[in-house]
Amino acid sequence: MSKELTSRAEDYSQWYNDLVIKSGLADHSAVRGCMVIKPYGFALWENMRDQLDKMFKDTGHVNAYFPLFVPKSLFEAEEKNAEGFAKECAIVTHYRLKADPDNKGKLIVDPEAKLEEELIIRPTSEAIIWNTYRGWIQSYRDLPILINQWANVVRWEMRTRLFLRTAEFLWQEGHTAHATKEEAIEETEKMLDVYADFVEQWMAVPVIKGIKTPNERFAGAEDTYCIEAMMQDGKALQAGTSHFLGQNFAKAFDVKFSDKNNKLDHVWATSWGVSTRLIGALIMAHSDDQGLIMPPKIAPVQVVIVPVYKGEESKVAIDAKANEMMCQLKALGIRVKYDNNDNSRPGWKFAEYELKGVPVRIAMGLRDIENNTVEVARRDTREKNVMGIDGLSEKIVQLLDDIQQYIYNKALAFQTAHISVADSWDDLVKILDDKGGFVSAHWDGTAETEEKIKEMAKATIRCIPLNNKKEEGACILTGKPSVQRVLFARAY
Amino acid sequence: MSKELTSRAEDYSQWYNDLVIKSGLADHSAVRGCMVIKPYGFALWENMRDQLDKMFKDTGHVNAYFPLFVPKSLFEAEEKNAEGFAKECAIVTHYRLKADPDNKGKLIVDPEAKLEEELIIRPTSEAIIWNTYRGWIQSYRDLPILINQWANVVRWEMRTRLFLRTAEFLWQEGHTAHATKEEAIEETEKMLDVYADFVEQWMAVPVIKGIKTPNERFAGAEDTYCIEAMMQDGKALQAGTSHFLGQNFAKAFDVKFSDKNNKLDHVWATSWGVSTRLIGALIMAHSDDQGLIMPPKIAPVQVVIVPVYKGEESKVAIDAKANEMMCQLKALGIRVKYDNNDNSRPGWKFAEYELKGVPVRIAMGLRDIENNTVEVARRDTREKNVMGIDGLSEKIVQLLDDIQQYIYNKALAFQTAHISVADSWDDLVKILDDKGGFVSAHWDGTAETEEKIKEMAKATIRCIPLNNKKEEGACILTGKPSVQRVLFARAY
Repeated sequence: MSKELTSRAEDYSQWYNDLVIKSGLADHSAVRGCMVIKPYGFALWENMRDQLDKMFKDTGHVNAYFPLFVPKSLFEAEEKNAEGFAKECAIVTHYRLKADPDNKGKLIVDPEAKLEEELIIRPTSEAIIWNTYRGWIQSYRDLPILINQWANVVRWEMRTRLFLRTAEFLWQEGHTAHATKEEAIEETEKMLDVYADFVEQWMAVPVIKGIKTPNERFAGAEDTYCIEAMMQDGKALQAGTSHFLGQNFAKAFDVKFSDKNNKLDHVWATSWGVSTRLIGALIMAHSDDQGLIMPPKIAPVQVVIVPVYKGEESKVAIDAKANEMMCQLKALGIRVKYDNNDNSRPGWKFAEYELKGVPVRIAMGLRDIENNTVEVARRDTREKNVMGIDGLSEKIVQLLDDIQQYIYNKALAFQTAHISVADSWDDLVKILDDKGGFVSAHWDGTAETEEKIKEMAKATIRCIPLNNKKEEGACILTGKPSVQRVLFARAY
Repeated sequence: MSKELTSRAEDYSQWYNDLVIKSGLADHSAVRGCMVIKPYGFALWENMRDQLDKMFKDTGHVNAYFPLFVPKSLFEAEEKNAEGFAKECAIVTHYRLKADPDNKGKLIVDPEAKLEEELIIRPTSEAIIWNTYRGWIQSYRDLPILINQWANVVRWEMRTRLFLRTAEFLWQEGHTAHATKEEAIEETEKMLDVYADFVEQWMAVPVIKGIKTPNERFAGAEDTYCIEAMMQDGKALQAGTSHFLGQNFAKAFDVKFSDKNNKLDHVWATSWGVSTRLIGALIMAHSDDQGLIMPPKIAPVQVVIVPVYKGEESKVAIDAKANEMMCQLKALGIRVKYDNNDNSRPGWKFAEYELKGVPVRIAMGLRDIENNTVEVARRDTREKNVMGIDGLSEKIVQLLDDIQQYIYNKALAFQTAHISVADSWDDLVKILDDKGGFVSAHWDGTAETEEKIKEMAKATIRCIPLNNKKEEGACILTGKPSVQRVLFARAY
């Protein structure tokens, strides 16, 4: 199998697909729109998940697990939510197969095993969770509930892309219940901050925090907060959302609590989620035509040591030195791999680990050992340096930090360079066509205009940035008065 | 809500259900046979999962993720496996809902959104995984593949019990691929050992390792190895299984590899799994009429500190001392909780943490502080001791070890006392009826006799113990010649 990638310039979309598959992150499966997350991709997800999980727990949340299935009658209880997801639901209707009488060895759905009520595979779990919360909440003493769930969800998308949009994906969904509106809004904002911190500090992807327009809100939310990231092709990607759900789900599922004065009120809710889609963002924010570029903090392998053997006696000496170095790096908490596989040559391995985006590669030959040096290559800049072996581990720790910072800075510079201001319709379209990125422009605040712009320019309002400057102006399409600019972009 | 439990003597089954729900481990859900794993239960599962995951990784395995869905044509490819699971499959037939024209606000399954091929929700993932492995394996260089998956699976059971048998459950499933039969068998046995170590060392539940009879094998396996545990009501519980799958799945999915001599052969397979059912085993092996008894090594909370306030000034002093003690315990890696919630009284808290099975409770009043002592109660024996505060943390570490060992020893003594020998049919039935437990008896080795014994005595052959002594005898039912004893029991 050729490991050569299509270049970004040639075909960005093909580059992405090539990269995901050839780097070993994921694979297509026999099920339409569903992917297989391969060990390398899953190790990345584990690192992301573990860090997020820690951040959730540090902010007082606990994990739980709710059923995969939502009975149709619960699914439809919150009407807007139901309407929003009805068109992309996988539906279980039967619970048994039987032998096909006409076709030996084959099975058919047993028509006698039809469910009385169809079960929807969760596209999101508000319905099943709020139906459960009803039994858990009586008084203000039962609040807040701060629960998170790591789970698989299914949304029957028609056009799928590995990681970016798959019929089944892995995610976490926080579902919290509060006694007051203020506390729920505070939680919504807090979790947006957690997401932004994680994506910026760990994934090295800068984001813009904002609020969605009513049109782009989560179905059933009062307000949807989001973080938006910029990809190298100038398209935006929604990296995480945090929803203030008001009392909508509490009302739909009749969840009330008595406050300190024994007054009954509906409970206030939030929900928030990020998914394996983040891996798509990571890939498209950093990688190049040689392959992935992994941020050191979440890279499955941070350092790879590749021996360059010449004859058997060099093997013994190099293996010994490499194992010693491995131990030193591991002692500093570094995820290091020694690839002394005999089946492939050093050059092939160099290319392979570039493709996989391992941040630091150490090459070690006999002459190196004699000189007490190694060759250290960083993946981000592709610089190579000969470095002394003494005290190397500490230098590698520093180098990993430098790489983390470098790729964040690079992505931030790209993002900053891709926020443009447009004051006329022609400018808006020209910027979107030529340069891409976010375009800051006035909008008259109506759903009709938003829809029209989407049709005409293929761009959506990504968000109204938090702490947005108030500025009077004229809508870029209708010329009607506007009180602030919003960010438009073409998006994933 | 009364927290009083039904006693074991009164109604063992009701005691179990009460305990699971009142201790906050899990709850019933709106979906038939599916449970909600509550935060306390999920924290326990996380501790179990993390330890198992470490043991899998230490033995060279990596995690990955495969689709939830299995297309029917793949599901039926390995005939025995398909036949074994066909009767308990949840089946997705449609991918869209639409507004019900006759019922405003309601939804119906859109008949136009019928899938061309039905999708089975995985009851186990051999089919989808081996269909994927075909694309990953060409040569011996691609072997072994040592993959594990943490996932939810669905088996449409008619009679369900929280944790023990639920329609959806969480588990891990290892799926490995090997170049030789010997290597695959070695893997099967290695993972059985990992399971036994985990269940004995971490869950403090002794197990018997053995092999299932052909009748009780996993559908599609050549051999099923198992660990069997003994519950307090004298019923056995299968705690984990490890399957040698031979070349059955490789043949069904056409997975071949070329060996070093370029000869093509089918790949050899294993699979192995444990599930949230283990939590049921944990509960039933250790708990008593006061509640759960958690093995310290996996207890979500290992130590709880309960203040006994008398007036405001005592609160300040006690809080300060308790926080100091918390820090010391945490520094030693102990999971400790300080419950200074004002809403409930110490006596209520004592009962609550007994119910939840927290291994060690430290009660602290003003007089204790003046005496530089605290009251330490261990959950397993319910002994209370006044202990000096100086050097307490180290003593608590030792105490947790002692408790772990004590409950293992107690369970082992119970198990040992519940392995009986029977040499006549009447003895077999009498032991099963009066005492329960495992009964070691001769069996003629035929499936017919096994089936007949199951019908007549309601007992199954739990396993043929590993390294079983060869001993000539006469079948307990038919009197036909037998070469070894096997273990019968009534089972969950």
